[in-house]
Amino acid sequence: MRRLILDLDTGIDDALALAYAIASHERGECELLAVTATYGNVTVERSLANTRTLLAVLGHPEIPVYAGPTRPGFAVLDVSAFIHGRNGVGEVCLPAAPAASPVTLGAVEFLAQAYRRYGADLLIVPTGPSTTIAQALRDFPELADAPIVFMGGALTVPGNVTAFAEANVYQDSAATDYLLQHGRDVSMVGLDVTLRTLLTCKETTQWRVSGTRTGQIFADMVDYYIDAYRTTSPHLGGCGLHDPLAVAAALDPSLVEWLPINLRCETGSGDKSEPDNGGARGRTIGDPRRLSTPCTTRVAVGVDVQRFLDEFMDRMEQCCRRD
Amino acid sequence: MRRLILDLDTGIDDALALAYAIASHERGECELLAVTATYGNVTVERSLANTRTLLAVLGHPEIPVYAGPTRPGFAVLDVSAFIHGRNGVGEVCLPAAPAASPVTLGAVEFLAQAYRRYGADLLIVPTGPSTTIAQALRDFPELADAPIVFMGGALTVPGNVTAFAEANVYQDSAATDYLLQHGRDVSMVGLDVTLRTLLTCKETTQWRVSGTRTGQIFADMVDYYIDAYRTTSPHLGGCGLHDPLAVAAALDPSLVEWLPINLRCETGSGDKSEPDNGGARGRTIGDPRRLSTPCTTRVAVGVDVQRFLDEFMDRMEQCCRRD
Repeated sequence: MRRLILDLDTGIDDALALAYAIASHERGECELLAVTATYGNVTVERSLANTRTLLAVLGHPEIPVYAGPTRPGFAVLDVSAFIHGRNGVGEVCLPAAPAASPVTLGAVEFLAQAYRRYGADLLIVPTGPSTTIAQALRDFPELADAPIVFMGGALTVPGNVTAFAEANVYQDSAATDYLLQHGRDVSMVGLDVTLRTLLTCKETTQWRVSGTRTGQIFADMVDYYIDAYRTTSPHLGGCGLHDPLAVAAALDPSLVEWLPINLRCETGSGDKSEPDNGGARGRTIGDPRRLSTPCTTRVAVGVDVQRFLDEFMDRMEQCCRRD
Repeated sequence: MRRLILDLDTGIDDALALAYAIASHERGECELLAVTATYGNVTVERSLANTRTLLAVLGHPEIPVYAGPTRPGFAVLDVSAFIHGRNGVGEVCLPAAPAASPVTLGAVEFLAQAYRRYGADLLIVPTGPSTTIAQALRDFPELADAPIVFMGGALTVPGNVTAFAEANVYQDSAATDYLLQHGRDVSMVGLDVTLRTLLTCKETTQWRVSGTRTGQIFADMVDYYIDAYRTTSPHLGGCGLHDPLAVAAALDPSLVEWLPINLRCETGSGDKSEPDNGGARGRTIGDPRRLSTPCTTRVAVGVDVQRFLDEFMDRMEQCCRRD
């Protein structure tokens, strides 16, 4: 049995990833051990609150949420607030989460504990910046053998915050580089595939007509997200299912086509006045010095779009049956 | 029977591509119809002369060479002269080519004629800038259906003239973009794979000890090339077999692993003070507007290194048996 830990900056597509994981958990395809909350689309505090609330909405308030480290000086980017809403969930008013029992363990320590207990059965899926997972690898080097499937990066397509960088990686490119250089079983699910798995209002309408509170909440959140995509990426004709695709590919790697390649992440400042011409901070690209050494990273470069969408909609309908 | 046309800026690895094609021609694996000469490593005139001389050295002075267009203002880059020598063939003194019968047909017209005659049996392999093939596609749009396998670009690894651009593509990025947008059967063999297929002095020594004039010439040329790589790319431990790998993959596509993806080539000036943040002239990257449309381009992203090197050395030994 795979023991799953999601590291979320919740976030609308993080909410969809959570729903996907919960449905898989209920089907016995994995055990969702916990969520760790990170910053990115929102602050760590907001991610923690949104995740706890959504876990309650999805009927699993018992699943614990651990807070990860933030990045000094972090502030939510305007574009993040535009895409996910200022509250991270598309300005939807979620019901208050039940009072939580106090959690003193941090995300980094929790990851190490879980790996000690479950070893290679553990599956860590970060869908935000790599800050928490990199810190865990630094503090507990034995975690390098843990299977890690992260949503982020862009190898064969341009980035979404710059021509080179995907948003998660851009937030803490040094952390992503650390992950890519030190992890020994790393799978990258980036814009290469997530921009091909699109959702439209046609699908969210199906959730809305379910008449349940959960269906209404998810339809409202995702319609907000689709609306933002109409402005930021009108050529796509929908919104990208970034985070749920990472969870799906982690649980069923046959959903995507993998290219084994050792990567690095550019950590330059991104200031184009720099003389190095490599100042493409957050660019994830093959590491020329490790082209012919055994691969520790693989990248999703193709996806079975229809099969993923079917799996995704199946699980969302399962979640939306709950009132 | 595949009818092969090479478009070369000859160039040391172009010379190896020519030898590979000649050996395949003699084995009946293809018919090498002609070579078209372009600029890049050298000028068009120098490429024409080098190619004619090498065809004579390789025992096939009957194969015609047609001159392609140059690029106004083109001058050989210092780095090209450093890698290939000022004469393009590692400062090796080649024997004078036999007097040529005057050729009045240009490369572009020849390509169109050959396609009219051979259709899908034609295989066009440009190993220099895309100038000639793009001009041919503009002047004779029916050529868009011709199979084209070009050496150039870098999708999953950094470039070799800038962090983004491979040398061939950098010379005329608008031409490469035209090829990628208009060709309907385009295969890109770029640095993704050619930096993994390396040659060392161990192999050239085998040609030298053959005691033939051809063996000596090729060993001298390639030793010069290996020496340059020691300075420009010391981490590789050899020289990249760029152009011969493109010919090999064209004749036997099973030598490489192909990723189907529609590409574009950035045509910005490369001036980083530009506001578009995409001023990475010569970057070959997935075209976000054509991610979900049928693929007209595929990119070599993996290579069976040992099988290619065996095929390559077999053919080089065949060529080096000739005195």
